[in-house]
Amino acid sequence: MQFTINRSSFIKALNNVNRAISSKTAMPILSGIKLVLENNGLTLTGSNTDISIETTIPTTDDQADLKVLEPGALVLPATFFTNIIKRLPGQTFTLNNDNGFQAKITSENAEFDINGQDAANYPHLPEVEIQNSLTLASETLVEVINQTVIAVSKQLSQPILTGVHFIIAGGNLTAVATDRHRLAQRTVALDGDMTATADIIVPGDSLNQLQAMLLEVETVDVRVSENQVIFQLGTNTTFYSRLLEGNYPDAARLIPTEKRTTLTINSRDLLQTIERAALLSHEGRSNVIQFTVNDDRSMISSNSPEVGRVEEQIFAAETAGDELTISFNPDYMREALKSFGDEQIQIGFKTALDPFTLVPTNNETNFIQLITPVRTY
Amino acid sequence: MQFTINRSSFIKALNNVNRAISSKTAMPILSGIKLVLENNGLTLTGSNTDISIETTIPTTDDQADLKVLEPGALVLPATFFTNIIKRLPGQTFTLNNDNGFQAKITSENAEFDINGQDAANYPHLPEVEIQNSLTLASETLVEVINQTVIAVSKQLSQPILTGVHFIIAGGNLTAVATDRHRLAQRTVALDGDMTATADIIVPGDSLNQLQAMLLEVETVDVRVSENQVIFQLGTNTTFYSRLLEGNYPDAARLIPTEKRTTLTINSRDLLQTIERAALLSHEGRSNVIQFTVNDDRSMISSNSPEVGRVEEQIFAAETAGDELTISFNPDYMREALKSFGDEQIQIGFKTALDPFTLVPTNNETNFIQLITPVRTY
Repeated sequence: MQFTINRSSFIKALNNVNRAISSKTAMPILSGIKLVLENNGLTLTGSNTDISIETTIPTTDDQADLKVLEPGALVLPATFFTNIIKRLPGQTFTLNNDNGFQAKITSENAEFDINGQDAANYPHLPEVEIQNSLTLASETLVEVINQTVIAVSKQLSQPILTGVHFIIAGGNLTAVATDRHRLAQRTVALDGDMTATADIIVPGDSLNQLQAMLLEVETVDVRVSENQVIFQLGTNTTFYSRLLEGNYPDAARLIPTEKRTTLTINSRDLLQTIERAALLSHEGRSNVIQFTVNDDRSMISSNSPEVGRVEEQIFAAETAGDELTISFNPDYMREALKSFGDEQIQIGFKTALDPFTLVPTNNETNFIQLITPVRTY
Repeated sequence: MQFTINRSSFIKALNNVNRAISSKTAMPILSGIKLVLENNGLTLTGSNTDISIETTIPTTDDQADLKVLEPGALVLPATFFTNIIKRLPGQTFTLNNDNGFQAKITSENAEFDINGQDAANYPHLPEVEIQNSLTLASETLVEVINQTVIAVSKQLSQPILTGVHFIIAGGNLTAVATDRHRLAQRTVALDGDMTATADIIVPGDSLNQLQAMLLEVETVDVRVSENQVIFQLGTNTTFYSRLLEGNYPDAARLIPTEKRTTLTINSRDLLQTIERAALLSHEGRSNVIQFTVNDDRSMISSNSPEVGRVEEQIFAAETAGDELTISFNPDYMREALKSFGDEQIQIGFKTALDPFTLVPTNNETNFIQLITPVRTY
C-alpha cells in the first residue's frame, strides 16, 4: 500500500474513528486502526465491539488530495499512530508498507517506521439485515440524546438501564432513560415518512460518542436491524452500535399524573442556587438538599451538622397549591436543570414522598424530567 | 469578627494564600486559612510548614472596599471556604462569627454557616532574624527560576538536590540546579547594592509557587535568615520558604570546558524534532534518542525494535569539529530547549561519553544547560 494525503484531512478522519477505540480491549488488534486503501479512496475503521466507526476519504475530496499509489491494507496502533501523524512537520505525508506489516511514514525530513499488524486479522464489521430506516435532522437527534442520556444508569448490574429506549411509532420518536432514581423523556414529531416503527435500546456510551460526531453533519440516516443500529453520517462515515437486549420498563407508568404543588421558575437561576447548596451537601455525610415551596418564601437549604448549613431564598414566578418540603440528591437536580438551558420551567409535586417532575412551561407534553425524592426521617 | 468586602478582591487574596495550602498535611489546622481582622485591614494566612503565605487587604484598598465592623480571628477550611466564596451570588459578602467558631457568610439571598477553628491554635509564622536583603526586578527572578528549576531532582533520596542553589556575591546572582543527570545555571548582574552576599538552597516547590505570584508585582524584596528566605511582594504579601540545609555540590566542576564538536541551531526548530523522536522513544523500553552531528547531514534518530524507528534530518546554521553520535534522554533535552524560547543556541560536545552543553549564541557565560549522555552498548 502507498498513498499521500493532506495531514489535517486525515487527522479529522482519525479523530472520528478513535472515538470507537478503547485502550482496554480484550482483543489486542482492536487497539489499532484499520486502513484499507482502494483505487477510489482510503477507509479507516475503529471498533471496541460495542461501537464500530468506519470513515472513507474518497479520492474526489479536493481538500484531502488523496493520491493512491498502490492499494493495500494494514492495522496500526491507534494512539501511537495518531500522535505521530499529529506531530509530523509537513502539511502532507506519505505512508507505505513495502516492508510487510511495517508502515513507513514520511513528511518533510521526518521518517517513522512503525510496526503494524495484518489487516486480514481485523474482525469484520457486523453484517446487518435492515428492518427499518429513517432520516432525522442531526440537530434534533443531538437534542434528544442530550436531554435523555443524563438519566441512564451507571450501574452495570442493571444492564438494560445503561441505555436509552427509543420508540418510533405513529410519526413520533420517543426517547426515555431512567436509573430508577430519575427519569428523562422526550418526544419529537417526525417529518416525512410516518410509517417507520422501531423499539430499540441504545447504550448510553454509544450515544455520547455519536452525539459529538452528529454536530458535523446536517442529517443522519438511522437503520435498525435485529441487534445493531447504524447511523449513516453524510456519505462517508458510518457509526455502528450494538443494541441492548431485553424489555425496558414502562416509563409512562412511573410518571405521576397528579400535581398538588407547582412552582414556576427560570431553570438557570434555580441551577445556580442548587449548585451553591451542593457545595455544602457534598461535604456532608448524606448528599441531600431540601426544597421548601411556600407562597411567601420558597427556599433551598441543606444541613450537615459536621460541616455547616446553607439556606437560600428563591424567587418563583408563580407558586400554587399546598406548602411542601421535599429532600433530594442535588446532583440529579443539577443535571436535570442543565438539560433545559435558560428557560421557564414548571416543577410539579404530589407529596414529599412521590417523584416530582420538571417540564418546560411552553410545551408540557414533549419533554419531562422526573426525580425521586430521598426519604429523610 | 465581622466584615463586608468586595468578593473578587477577596478571591485574589484567597488564590494567593491557597498556594501554600496542601490537602495532605500532618497538622489538620493547616488545611485551613487563618483570617485575622484588625481595624486597618484583613490578613489571610496559609501554610504547609515549608511555605507560608500571608497577604493583607488594607481598609484603604478602594476596590476591596473592606468595612471592618468588629475585629477578630478565625480559621476556616481552605478548599470548602474558597469554593463557597467563588460561588456566592453577590458582588460583596459579609462574614461574621457571632456563633464562636462558626462563620456565617451572607451574600444576597444566600446564607452559609460553616464550622471553623480557633485561630489561637494556628501555628505562628517563623520569626526570622534578617542577615541579608536585596531588591530584584520580579521579571528577572521569574526568568532565573524558570531557567533553573527544571533541573531540580524529584528524588527525595537526595534532599539537597530538590532545591535551587542561589549564590549572591560580587554584584552577581547565580542560580544553579542539578539532579546529577542534567544541570542548569544562570547568572545575572545585580543593579544597585553590590555588597549583599548570600548562599542559600531554596526548595524547587517553593520556587514554582513563588514564580506564579511574582508575575503580579514589579519588584521583590528578598530577605535571608539562618533557615528561611522571605520574599516581600509589594507591601501587602509576604512569601516565606524554608531553606534546605547542607552543602550543595560544586557546579563549576561539572561543566566541561573543552568542546570538540559544536552545532548552532534554532532552539524551537530542534525542540519540535526532539518531541517527534520522543513519541517513539516513549513507546520503547529505553527512553533514549541519538543525535548525530555531521558536516553533511546532522540528524536525530531513535530505534526501538519492538515499536519502530524514527529518523529526522536537522538543519544546523553551523557545525564545526569532529563527527559524533551521542545518546540521551529526550525529556531532559526537551525541557532544556524549552528554557531558551525561540533563539539561536550553540550545543557543545566533547565526546559521546561526556556531558554536553547548550548555551545561547549571544551570551555564552550567563546561561548554560548541561545534559549527561546515556551510555548505549
